Amino acid sequence: MRSALVLAGGRGERFWPMSLPGRPKQLLPLADGTILLTATLERLDGIVAPEHTWILTGRDLFEPVSRLVGDRARVVAEPVGRNTAPAVGLAAILAGAYGAEDAMIVLPSDHLVAHRDVFRADLRLACTLAEERERLVTFGIQPDRPEVGYGYLERGAPIAGHERAFEVKSFREKPDLDTARRYVASGDFRWNSGMFVWRPDVLLAALARHRPGLAHGLAAFEAPAAAAAAGDAMAFEAAIARDFAGLESISVDYAVMEKADNAATIDAAFAWDDLGSWGAWARRRPRDERGNVVEERAVAIDSDDCTVLGGGDRPVVVIGGKGLVIVQHDGGTLVCPADRVDEVRKAVAALDERGWSTPPPDDEGNPR
Amino acid sequence: MRSALVLAGGRGERFWPMSLPGRPKQLLPLADGTILLTATLERLDGIVAPEHTWILTGRDLFEPVSRLVGDRARVVAEPVGRNTAPAVGLAAILAGAYGAEDAMIVLPSDHLVAHRDVFRADLRLACTLAEERERLVTFGIQPDRPEVGYGYLERGAPIAGHERAFEVKSFREKPDLDTARRYVASGDFRWNSGMFVWRPDVLLAALARHRPGLAHGLAAFEAPAAAAAAGDAMAFEAAIARDFAGLESISVDYAVMEKADNAATIDAAFAWDDLGSWGAWARRRPRDERGNVVEERAVAIDSDDCTVLGGGDRPVVVIGGKGLVIVQHDGGTLVCPADRVDEVRKAVAALDERGWSTPPPDDEGNPR
Repeated sequence: MRSALVLAGGRGERFWPMSLPGRPKQLLPLADGTILLTATLERLDGIVAPEHTWILTGRDLFEPVSRLVGDRARVVAEPVGRNTAPAVGLAAILAGAYGAEDAMIVLPSDHLVAHRDVFRADLRLACTLAEERERLVTFGIQPDRPEVGYGYLERGAPIAGHERAFEVKSFREKPDLDTARRYVASGDFRWNSGMFVWRPDVLLAALARHRPGLAHGLAAFEAPAAAAAAGDAMAFEAAIARDFAGLESISVDYAVMEKADNAATIDAAFAWDDLGSWGAWARRRPRDERGNVVEERAVAIDSDDCTVLGGGDRPVVVIGGKGLVIVQHDGGTLVCPADRVDEVRKAVAALDERGWSTPPPDDEGNPR
Repeated sequence: MRSALVLAGGRGERFWPMSLPGRPKQLLPLADGTILLTATLERLDGIVAPEHTWILTGRDLFEPVSRLVGDRARVVAEPVGRNTAPAVGLAAILAGAYGAEDAMIVLPSDHLVAHRDVFRADLRLACTLAEERERLVTFGIQPDRPEVGYGYLERGAPIAGHERAFEVKSFREKPDLDTARRYVASGDFRWNSGMFVWRPDVLLAALARHRPGLAHGLAAFEAPAAAAAAGDAMAFEAAIARDFAGLESISVDYAVMEKADNAATIDAAFAWDDLGSWGAWARRRPRDERGNVVEERAVAIDSDDCTVLGGGDRPVVVIGGKGLVIVQHDGGTLVCPADRVDEVRKAVAALDERGWSTPPPDDEGNPR
């Protein structure tokens, strides 16, 4: 049986001031009403059963995530964030304990995917490759711009007998702009989408080989996971509370994928957007004749290439703006040039420092 | 006896989103707690008696202005704004009716004046000139920058026997930047401060000569003003309600000053700021080492020459801003380059058009 891990941690800082602590991007309704976490689960319908679907999230999000997903998945709260390698390792152990030994699909909870059926067909291709060839499978996205906010992967030779499947020649971290341009021009590079498919035992073997310390730490969860599968949820929760924080904080890309000789990538047929910043958000919205995205209670006067979002009950007006992103929402107001939206975490950090961060919404989801 | 007219109309649009309809600049407490209208009246203490001090304001401001000034002045509500010429004409008629036939001092209610005693000495100089030489007296402010937001006056020959008093060679409307630079370089030009001193009869004679139609319209208020002075306030109010809207809407500069041969100007010894825009406001605030003015709940990250004001309970953050003015307040949020703050009325107009203007504050002065 197949399993899935949906990664739903993170404070959603990149969408400040719209996302708030306790109400990150994956839980916010988008303009069309979609909630990204819900949409992610719906993409797995019929491929993975709810009892073999795990969501890993932060302790502060456990309540709202559990309420949102109901019985469509099992929710596990990490006491502290430890990046993706401990998360995927833990999920692999859980899947094994619950008897789901076929492919495990790992999906971030906050990406947008268009063409749902195409995506599901690609997932099935990846599952076959993971199951039959013991591959660590990634999805490579054809870049349409020299994005510096993503990692890239360099495509190698085709894998015989598997449609759109290739060896991975190299993984590359977020490039500078010149390098990104070179990647796009070469045609050999794909965006690393952060989605993975592997068999739990294959992933754990790769962890043991390339990051033995972490694999050793994860082994402590085997007995508690077996206990959980046998009905003793308390034992598992106690183990998480006791031992999870001691695991090494490292990404699975760095811990395993870059070193593995059995990585593979599938050229994605679906359309994808990680919706990772206000820039990504604005790319999906209609523009006026001067290139402005003007949404909700917002006005752009004699401005060009601005994104102006007036959320909440107060208007926001830009006069003579050029290439600015201006977002007003419950959490406050952000102003920055469009090419610096990736720095919005600095705003969140500065507010934390001053004690000005907006508290998370109350139980009804209203801002306090 | 001397009299005074304090001009307190206007919506305060230039300070959107801080100023709101019903709570314009002259009624807002500034950062140091000063209320500009109150400070204006205090400057007249001992020079003009409260019973000869009139405040003209809009109908929507009659209540809050009356509450603020108590018995320190007589408040008259204009049913509609008609610019300054009808206002000063009406005040001159009132002063005459109340037996205050010496100099009348006309002051906007929303200017900042430093060195109160110097200002009062200058007012007395102006009163003497108005009373003894039948002059229409203005105050010329030495420009310290090529401001395009002000009118200018060109100084002529000195007036013998009157300290710092000069003929006015010409009045100039708001110049473009090159012209303003030329004015500043020449040394012969002064900012027209919008303050005036004249005898009521001299002003009315000039109106009759240069704008006879308006003078004729104003004559209809002579009998009601006399009735008011005799205790019949109702007759005067009825006349205002009936006839004021029919008066020509025109500035006193254009209707009279530019054409008069008895205009004079006194080189102001006091420091003055009309505080006419967010730019003027920012000039009075301390800057950080990168030229940013950052006030209240505001943060400037890697920014230069920005003014960031975070009023209200939500923070505002700018990242990588250059020369921007960003103001968040009850009324909403304004973003514009510093050299375009004079266009903030466009924001107010755009919000009016969309029905997004913030309602005026309630009776306790709280935003609704």
